[in-house]
Amino acid sequence: MRTLIVVAHPLAESFTHAAAERVKATLERRGLEVDLIDLYADNFDPRLNAAERRAYFEPPHDSSAVADYAARLRGAQKLVVVFPQWWFAPPAILKGFFDRVMAPGVAFEHRPGGGLTPLLSGIDALWVVSSTGAPWWIARLYMGDPVRRLIARGVKPWISPRAKFRMLTLHDMDHFTPAKGEAFLDRLERAFKLF
Amino acid sequence: MRTLIVVAHPLAESFTHAAAERVKATLERRGLEVDLIDLYADNFDPRLNAAERRAYFEPPHDSSAVADYAARLRGAQKLVVVFPQWWFAPPAILKGFFDRVMAPGVAFEHRPGGGLTPLLSGIDALWVVSSTGAPWWIARLYMGDPVRRLIARGVKPWISPRAKFRMLTLHDMDHFTPAKGEAFLDRLERAFKLF
Repeated sequence: MRTLIVVAHPLAESFTHAAAERVKATLERRGLEVDLIDLYADNFDPRLNAAERRAYFEPPHDSSAVADYAARLRGAQKLVVVFPQWWFAPPAILKGFFDRVMAPGVAFEHRPGGGLTPLLSGIDALWVVSSTGAPWWIARLYMGDPVRRLIARGVKPWISPRAKFRMLTLHDMDHFTPAKGEAFLDRLERAFKLF
Repeated sequence: MRTLIVVAHPLAESFTHAAAERVKATLERRGLEVDLIDLYADNFDPRLNAAERRAYFEPPHDSSAVADYAARLRGAQKLVVVFPQWWFAPPAILKGFFDRVMAPGVAFEHRPGGGLTPLLSGIDALWVVSSTGAPWWIARLYMGDPVRRLIARGVKPWISPRAKFRMLTLHDMDHFTPAKGEAFLDRLERAFKLF
């Protein structure tokens, strides 16, 4: 029962990393095996390249450059992505994880007549932990919760449709206080006890 | 009256590049000055780095690494972004253009009490040209037009609120035909005659 945590923030001292650490510690205390990909620490290149794009619709898709990530993704039963929302969306480095690693032959396969066959049905839970600079009503009411939409509707159904989705977001980081931060970390701990 | 076109696709022979070229040619035939940023050709690194993130809320924000792009953005009166939608969102390399170049001191300024002051009000039009693999109703009805939402609502109001927004999308690229492609390029030409 392995959980893969993917974290995307350039600063090790960021709240994003604190959140990822709390999730990891909570899961390990439950005896679960946790694998963590720190995209910035790995210096991951998020740009789908010319060869990868050229092969996108011609199996076998060449995903050798991201083979290690692909294997870790395939070995995961639970997936957690942890990131700050920049411009109401994941940082470029995480967007590139979707572009390059959630690729044909890894996350899905093109069906001959059109449409996709999910290849990561082994993942039974996909949770998102994120933060926004703006207050909750800007992200939810004005923007229509774009990150939830992109990941729950735009990605999950094509890679593992039956995975349980949940999103935990700390809003209004522009008015962050240590007390708000601690309360959110405690909320994460309670939530991930039941993950 | 300078137009800046930003294009994001790893293949020079892609439909995305054909679309950008048609837009450029149409504008040049009108006598407009066109500047074009080809993010892949420039080998643009889309990852907001540690120093940039650290300085994000502490002016002056260090945007020296992207100073050339920032200057070209400041000099633009019209902005066009041309890209394929991958996972219903811009490719990572373009997301990073927003993360790194649409930065404090370039695209907006943080106000002391909170909120942002737009700094690119010189841009009077922001148009998006994109394509989706999926049919139009998946992008529009099921996904809720996430790219329009992200750029028209999530970016434009904070950098140049009065800029006119328009989005031209070629859907269902998974069933592309040359005739559909040509018809879309002609549609672009008609639209950009009035840009």
